[in-house]
Amino acid sequence: MAFTFVEGGVCAAQGFSAGAVHAGIRKNHDKKDLALIFADRMCSAAAIYTQNKVKGAPLIVTREHLQNGRARAILCNSGNANTCNADGLDIAAAMCKSAAQALKIAANDVVVASTGVIGQPLPLGPIKDAMPALAASLSTGGSGDAAEAIMTTDTKRKQVAVRFPIGEKMCTIGGIAKGSGMIHPNMATMLCFVTTDADIAPELLQKACKDVADETFNMISVDGDTSTNDMLAILASGAAGNEPIKSLGKEYYHFQQGLMIVCRRLARELAADGEGATKLLECAVTGAPDCQTAKKVAKSVICSSLFKAAMFGCDANWGRVLCAIGYADAEFDVDRVGVTLSSAAGSVVVCSNGAGVPFSEEQAAKILAQPEIRIEIDMAQGGETATAWGCDLTYDYVKINGDYRT
Amino acid sequence: MAFTFVEGGVCAAQGFSAGAVHAGIRKNHDKKDLALIFADRMCSAAAIYTQNKVKGAPLIVTREHLQNGRARAILCNSGNANTCNADGLDIAAAMCKSAAQALKIAANDVVVASTGVIGQPLPLGPIKDAMPALAASLSTGGSGDAAEAIMTTDTKRKQVAVRFPIGEKMCTIGGIAKGSGMIHPNMATMLCFVTTDADIAPELLQKACKDVADETFNMISVDGDTSTNDMLAILASGAAGNEPIKSLGKEYYHFQQGLMIVCRRLARELAADGEGATKLLECAVTGAPDCQTAKKVAKSVICSSLFKAAMFGCDANWGRVLCAIGYADAEFDVDRVGVTLSSAAGSVVVCSNGAGVPFSEEQAAKILAQPEIRIEIDMAQGGETATAWGCDLTYDYVKINGDYRT
Repeated sequence: MAFTFVEGGVCAAQGFSAGAVHAGIRKNHDKKDLALIFADRMCSAAAIYTQNKVKGAPLIVTREHLQNGRARAILCNSGNANTCNADGLDIAAAMCKSAAQALKIAANDVVVASTGVIGQPLPLGPIKDAMPALAASLSTGGSGDAAEAIMTTDTKRKQVAVRFPIGEKMCTIGGIAKGSGMIHPNMATMLCFVTTDADIAPELLQKACKDVADETFNMISVDGDTSTNDMLAILASGAAGNEPIKSLGKEYYHFQQGLMIVCRRLARELAADGEGATKLLECAVTGAPDCQTAKKVAKSVICSSLFKAAMFGCDANWGRVLCAIGYADAEFDVDRVGVTLSSAAGSVVVCSNGAGVPFSEEQAAKILAQPEIRIEIDMAQGGETATAWGCDLTYDYVKINGDYRT
Repeated sequence: MAFTFVEGGVCAAQGFSAGAVHAGIRKNHDKKDLALIFADRMCSAAAIYTQNKVKGAPLIVTREHLQNGRARAILCNSGNANTCNADGLDIAAAMCKSAAQALKIAANDVVVASTGVIGQPLPLGPIKDAMPALAASLSTGGSGDAAEAIMTTDTKRKQVAVRFPIGEKMCTIGGIAKGSGMIHPNMATMLCFVTTDADIAPELLQKACKDVADETFNMISVDGDTSTNDMLAILASGAAGNEPIKSLGKEYYHFQQGLMIVCRRLARELAADGEGATKLLECAVTGAPDCQTAKKVAKSVICSSLFKAAMFGCDANWGRVLCAIGYADAEFDVDRVGVTLSSAAGSVVVCSNGAGVPFSEEQAAKILAQPEIRIEIDMAQGGETATAWGCDLTYDYVKINGDYRT
């Protein structure tokens, strides 16, 4: 199977356009704050949402709209989460209606999402007023503006697309995402929108969505805080003309593999661009007795504040890795565990059979000075594996979140 | 019932002495690093330990020594956790033997504890060499030196004692503790030693120990990291001459109440002196449907990195409180929840029925500028309550942990 990365983000798949404007939800006029993604035909659609019991109003409206497994557009604002507001549901529904009018589609074919401050009323006026300009901004030329408009404290746009065959047809899957803070997804991540021209039934799209998120977005953490507005939504137009995927055959797994590639790349980018982050941490667990244990151990390590701070300081304090492994909520033998720290600068074994081994601090410091650090944990008690991604804990994380609202 | 705070820490109860020296485990000669607590007679003894699967060698040795419910001394070093070391158990046992020789007691009547870096061999030599001076330093005059010697990155000694009647006799319970980082106790906290002259059977002492820890040390968090070396150990000498407590009557509950006062005060001090902390956060949940839900909600809030950073910045970003409530692992209705922020400077309602209410940002900022902040959460769906303690997340937490080992 050949998967080729291509440009264009959510516009890479045939028949999708995207655009963005500054509607005035954010005060900074230079920052676009309203994004739109549009399909030229009706799509199969699926989404997964945060498991936080406090759910943003847009998620509730979107879930209702996707009950029929169909959608044609995604509308998303940044600067305000539209969560914990008394009129939140009305505003989210009105946003869909406004977009539907401009696009000449039904309101329940619109997916709506919001990200930003929780608990401040979201004014509808600026959004309605900006809708004609937003619709006019739609272009098939690329989704850079949309990827930027959904950013909050993210420092980089995140978009990726991959092309691969399903049967005799070439299909494309592309996505944009935003993350940064309040990132500890528990169903999906803070916002990821994916489009594809593959032809796939809604129920299989939902399955792929869930299965892929479990291996990608649900395996990252910036700060352990599960947001109220997490959403991964995907539209599949069928424009590629492949034999419609209606069962769990080879074609479905090719599709799922493509989606996995897109989501894994975006998840890594979210982790690397965590609030204040200077480093991507990738924790790869092997030799686990079962899959859940592998995942819990990997996530426990990348969630440890102490370990994250040590990585910021290039300090090979592997005792903190062992400590985090030890409090993972799973049953296993810690006395078999080995730990290796790796990066582009090399690799050093720091722990074997649960105890320290002599190593060169100088070499370790060089390895940890790289922007991507890999923590390899061999549990040596089975054949299961898992990978989780996170970032270091830095002064800037504190600075950014010490006064986020101003 | 009258409970009176008294001076003296673990030396406040009759017949206990304490002392400390610089043995050379730490490089800094000005910092004592070895502490000893000694009882003039055999005591009932109980302890609880970390639930981390990686357990420091001293915990394993202590658990063995306390199987008979008896002990007379507590030996503790800082600067090295004696954890994840191949020879850890031998060293911990040899530490007990060395103290036993100096004190002329049996080695299995010694409780041993260590705190500091994980995974670096702990040399026995300096400890053995320092033992005569350590024994000579024992004094009934107060436990300030011992409280200092068990500190790692703590900035303040933590000791407290309380006096109250059991039957017709006055009893005293006193404790010392250390915390700072890797503080998210799951059984006990990073180190707390309690002495009492009350006469109480070991099995009831163990019950009181466990029940009190659940409401105090298990309700604090500095950074979500459960240490490998957590230990709460208590010695009860019976020197007060009270009718021995052998059943769950009124006397037992008086004792437990006294222990609760001592441990709650120490737990608050641990939270307030968390690594880098500038503020104590106290989250008080009322109106919960059940006790576990109350505890989970309270801990979820004080563990949120985002909320902790907002408190550092005096930012009344209550949406982060709602978010943390929402991802607490419990079942309840978030739409009834109300939130009030309080301190010595006043009180402000920021959320009612799960949605924001207008409030003065200026007043809120004044309230949050105080050193002790209380977050009051009324769940309005039952009668259960819980309180948890934490601290803000600051630049200094990152600084301290970015390079802890050097």
